[in-house]
Order: sequence, then C-alpha cells, then structure tokens
Amino acid sequence: MQHHTTVGIIGGGPAGLLLARLLHNHGIDCVVLESRERDYVEQRQRAGILEQGTVDVLRSCGAGERLDREGLVHDGIELRWNRRSHRVDFPALTGGRRVWVYAQTEVVKDLIALQLAEGAPLLFGAHVHAVEGADTDRPVVRYRHEGREKTLSCDYVIGCDGFHGVTRSAFPEQARRTYERVYPFSWLGILADVAPSCEELIYAHSPRGFALHSMRSPEVSRLYLQVPNGTDPADWSDERIWDELEARFAVDGDWKLERGPVTSKAVLPMRSFVTEPMRWGRVLLAGDAAHIVPPTGAKGLNLAAADVIVLARALAHLEETGSTALLDAYSDTCLRRVWRAEHFSWFMTTTLHTDPAQSDFDTRLQISQLDRIAASPHAAAELAENYAGLEIG
Amino acid sequence: MQHHTTVGIIGGGPAGLLLARLLHNHGIDCVVLESRERDYVEQRQRAGILEQGTVDVLRSCGAGERLDREGLVHDGIELRWNRRSHRVDFPALTGGRRVWVYAQTEVVKDLIALQLAEGAPLLFGAHVHAVEGADTDRPVVRYRHEGREKTLSCDYVIGCDGFHGVTRSAFPEQARRTYERVYPFSWLGILADVAPSCEELIYAHSPRGFALHSMRSPEVSRLYLQVPNGTDPADWSDERIWDELEARFAVDGDWKLERGPVTSKAVLPMRSFVTEPMRWGRVLLAGDAAHIVPPTGAKGLNLAAADVIVLARALAHLEETGSTALLDAYSDTCLRRVWRAEHFSWFMTTTLHTDPAQSDFDTRLQISQLDRIAASPHAAAELAENYAGLEIG
Repeated sequence: MQHHTTVGIIGGGPAGLLLARLLHNHGIDCVVLESRERDYVEQRQRAGILEQGTVDVLRSCGAGERLDREGLVHDGIELRWNRRSHRVDFPALTGGRRVWVYAQTEVVKDLIALQLAEGAPLLFGAHVHAVEGADTDRPVVRYRHEGREKTLSCDYVIGCDGFHGVTRSAFPEQARRTYERVYPFSWLGILADVAPSCEELIYAHSPRGFALHSMRSPEVSRLYLQVPNGTDPADWSDERIWDELEARFAVDGDWKLERGPVTSKAVLPMRSFVTEPMRWGRVLLAGDAAHIVPPTGAKGLNLAAADVIVLARALAHLEETGSTALLDAYSDTCLRRVWRAEHFSWFMTTTLHTDPAQSDFDTRLQISQLDRIAASPHAAAELAENYAGLEIG
Repeated sequence: MQHHTTVGIIGGGPAGLLLARLLHNHGIDCVVLESRERDYVEQRQRAGILEQGTVDVLRSCGAGERLDREGLVHDGIELRWNRRSHRVDFPALTGGRRVWVYAQTEVVKDLIALQLAEGAPLLFGAHVHAVEGADTDRPVVRYRHEGREKTLSCDYVIGCDGFHGVTRSAFPEQARRTYERVYPFSWLGILADVAPSCEELIYAHSPRGFALHSMRSPEVSRLYLQVPNGTDPADWSDERIWDELEARFAVDGDWKLERGPVTSKAVLPMRSFVTEPMRWGRVLLAGDAAHIVPPTGAKGLNLAAADVIVLARALAHLEETGSTALLDAYSDTCLRRVWRAEHFSWFMTTTLHTDPAQSDFDTRLQISQLDRIAASPHAAAELAENYAGLEIG
C-alpha cells in the first residue's frame, strides 16, 4: 500500500521533529519516520547548549514552555588554562546574545509530545531502507514498519537521519563531495548526581588534556574528559574520573570540584564531516545527515535547527508562491553557516585539546591564543559571536 | 689586548644597530661586532614592512629621515582567495595604526651611516667565537678581527647575532628550552624592475599555493611564491615565475599583473623558533638570536625592534637608578610579545599556504576563515591589530 504526503521526513531526532512543527505552522502536511522506539529516542544523551536562535524557533512552534521554566540561561563561559581563568561575557561582547542550557533529550521529548498531541503522523520503529527517485517529481521512501513493507511517496523527502542515515545515499555518488576529519581523541562524558561546581560552563586546557564542566540542572552535573580513542569507560572508575577532572580544572584561588554519584559514563568520538550539496532533486538533507562537528563548540544541535528553519521557510515560500527560489538556494544558504560552524568547532577543539602528536611549540601557540582571548576584546568577541550563534539565513 | 665596554653587542643587523643607537641616546657606551663586511650587510635582502612602533623608534634615534622620504605608507592589505578579494583597512580597524614599506636593508644602511658618523665603535669582519662568563659580573667576548684574536670585556653582552649566532650557546644547555616548527614549504622571492601591480600588499590563497605581491619602491616589485622545500631557483625561469604568479593572483574583475625583468631570485625557508629564557646572567638575546617567525605576518624585524626598545629602556633604567628591575623582567616582557607574534605568524602562514599533506577539509577551513575575515569586523580587527602591531612593553 502506498501513501502520499507533501514532505516525508526521515528521522525523528531534533531536526526532523522541529521541521515537522515548522511545517505544521505553515499548514504543510508531512510524515515523520523514526527507526528507533520512542523510549530510546527520549533517553539518548546528546548536546545541551541552545543558541538564542534555536530557543526562538522552539518558542515559535510551541515548544518553549518547559524550556523557559527549566532551562538555565547562561551569559558566558569560563576558560581555564595555565591555572588561570577568564570569563567570556556573551551579552557584553555580542550585543545581548546568550545561550540556554537545556538538554537535547528534553527538546526531543517536548517536540514528540507536541507532535503526538496533534495527531500528526510520527511513526516509531519505521526502518527506512531506500529513498528512490530523487530526480523525479515524486520521490518515494521504502520502509518497514510493524513487520510490513511500506512505501511513502512524497513531493519532497528530507533526510534528518543522522550521520549513519540512508538518505544521503539517494544522491548519486558522483554528485557528492565529502569532507572529513577524525580527531585523535574522544570525550569520556559522565552524568553525576551533584550540584554543578560552577554557574557557567568551564572549558579547561591542561597539559593532561581537555576537560569540560557542564550541567543538566541545578542537581545534575555533566562533565567530560579528553581520553584516547578506543578508551573503554569500564577502565575509568568514578574515583579516577573525579581525580582527573580535579587535576585538569586546577586553578589558582579557591575553587573546589564537588563530587557525587556517577549515573552514566560513555565515550564520544570526535569527528568533522560535511557532504555537499545538501540537496539533490527533491531530496534534501538537514542536520547530522549532512554535517557533523566535534562537540567542543556546542554547534551540532544548533546547526540542525538552522538547517530546518531555512528549509521550512523555503518550503513555505514554494507553497505560497509556487517559486522554488529559496529551495534552490537551500544548499548554498546552509553551507555558508555549516562551514563557519565547522571552522569554529575545529578552532575550539584544536585550541583546547592536547593532540598526542603535538609539540611543545604547538602547546605554546594554544596558550598564546588563550592569552589573546583574555587580552583582546576583538579576539573574545570572535569567540563569543560564534559560540552564542550567528544570525540565521 | 683586552678592551672594556658597558654593552657589547654581537651582530650588526637591525637589532644590534638599533640597540646601539638607543644606547647612544641614553649616553651608554657600547661596541658592535659584526662578522660580515659592510657591503654584504648592506645588500642582504630581508623583510620590508615596518610597524608604527618600529617607525617611531627609528625616527627617535635619527634614522627616520630617508624612511619618511622614501618609505611608502600603507593603510591596509588585500587578501585574495576563491577569485575574490577583500581589503583589510588598518587605520579603520585599529584606531589609526598603519605600516610602512621600507626595506630592512635600507634601515640597516641608515643605521650604519649614523653609527659610523658618530665614530662609535662598529667593527665589520669581527668573528665572535665565544661568549664567556655569563654568570659573572664581567662577561667577555672573544673574537678575531683583522687576523688577530681579541677580547672585549663588558658589563652586559647582547646577542643580536641571529638564528645561527654564537651568543645563545653562552646559556647553559640545561637552562634553555627551545620550541620549533619547520614548515613543509618555502618562498621563492624575486625582485623585479617593474612598477607594482597594486597599491598595497596582496596576500593570495590559491589551490596552487600561496603568493604575495609586495614592493620596494614605485619602480621595484617584490613578489613571492610558495614552493616545495629544496626548490632550486634555477628551475624557475622568469616566464614560469610570472605565469605562476598570474595564476595564483587570479581574481574576478579586471586586474593585471605587470611583468618586468627579474633582478634577483632566492629561496627562503620557513621556520618558527623560540628559545627561553632570553636572558642568562649578564648575557641577553634580542631578535632572531632568540626567535624566528615565518615571514607571512611581517613580524621578524618588528619583533627585533620591540626587543631592543625594551632592552634599551631596561639598561637606561639601570644606569639612572641602579635598579635591575626592568632588566630582570626583560625576558618575560619580550616573550609575551614574541609568543603573540609567533601565533599570529603561524596563523597567517597556515591560513594562506597549502600544506602538501592538507585535506580538502583543511582547505575549506582556510576558506571559511578568510570568508569570516571579510564578513566580521572582529575577525578583521584581530588580523589588523596583530599585523599593524601591538603596543610595546
């Protein structure tokens, strides 16, 4: 049996779910196909920093209520290196921009609840195995759901199915260019039932490697340690983790890292990836399906949100005017922002981490860059503007 | 026979000669020992961009007259990449700072003429082979001059004898830390008897490698091409050089590279190098003896000038007050600026050159950085401030 929808969305992560909400606002019908079950999707631990533009769009589609109640507004970050500390003040440096700490997993819960409440089609456990006819007027999505093979024909198919998704392969091989960098380190991330030892995030450069102190709520801390690729979390006892965090955050003056029960431990790889173009015929990519950034600049989720904002605008423009002008510009429009974010994420990653192959000279360049951010309003503003988020469009 | 002087200066390049002038202003006696002959020193082709602070100090010691007459004041540079062009406006971005195009070899001629006119001791062909007693109250310099072994005892010895100089070895091995990076490319530099094809310097990023259009005068152009290490200038005919320059400077719009007779061709290696500390006992290093930068940021000569400004001030302070406080701070004071310049020079070099090992991803990061400089006042100001020169001290 074959169904038809205007926009077939593959993937029910934040990109796919947010796109569905935005299309709903414009009265454009769509179907979201998510391969995992709802429980799994709602538990996945991912990013936790939302730019102003991301918060604005979540509010505009009705997903801002809990975010506004539970999200933590942050006006800066703290950098640490050489036992010194420097705060980067976002509103002061960017003309008022700030960020929100609100976990991606919570964003996803809010968006799922909204989507289901309005009875719009969001199918869990729908395994897409092929996207066909990108070059035709009516591309089709083939998937398996509840034990049966199904086909969804669409005016447009949007791949929000992440780095490992199937949609990208609907683009002819020879039309795709991919750019990639794999980093020689990973993050060991933990959740701990302890109040954060800081008001704002701490990004620490240390001779022992990078560390990041983040939080999920006033009672739950989220912390990360740079570790070698291939690290087994089982090799890291809670005590070893806390000892290492304490050593990397060490700073002159009295500051103390509070310890608490570790409730989750996982190793995250670090990768930069871009595929171009982001559109082929009537198939378009958004979010991680098209690009990955290492998490150091907190750009992944925000980049996905920016993609779908541009995409929803383009589809609404087509609906209203019959013009594909914005849709035709989609790939170029998004890629400008993508490459900016790729560069910023690479900059934050390589400035703060210790590459096992780096020389003492390289380390001193990192220190010089960090000293400069502390000394120069322009250097600090360059970090703040990129971190708090550039204008979308 | 043993002579004595207050300050023994090893090396009659710009650092040593400028220091001698500054000490003369303070009535402190010194002797400059230069291993080469005058003709050689006055012909060496080196850098050509002077920061505001360097121009100010040259004027203050009487070496500004010809510079003010023949030097070209530049209010910016042009960047080229992806066939597009962007001008970085220094005074607008830095509150009025600018740079001068005036060759180092001309600075050296002016300083030598001044030094000799006042009859102060400046010995050419004086081969220093040892600096001894850094830890004592009276270090000595052993050198060979006009076929005879000589000894100069000093209150202080200043090593302005460049990267290959002997002074650095007066520091105990275990007290020295060195930091180094050698780049996988060189510059092929030419002088040509043709009017420059531009008003200001052009720094060009291209898939074929970096190119720089500079000038010596309204009639003489100075141009550089990135070439592989080990390149033999003899393999580059004039025609091949001009063809390659033309390809790398290619830009949309009508711009033409004027060709002319090539009068000089040489290959310059690219290196970053720092030795710490810059002082041991009564022996101090200044300029290339202590640090080398790749030439992309035009920092080498200016960094040497900054060192000797700080040093002359410290020696004058000692003379006037008997306090070694400034001298004790010399190394730390200079190294802050040195590491800033090392970082900036590395940034300019790695942003604009094509590393033979770089991936397409790396190239796109370079483009993204250059796009950002064109789009963001903060990113442009960060370049402009570093290029036009930070405050000394």
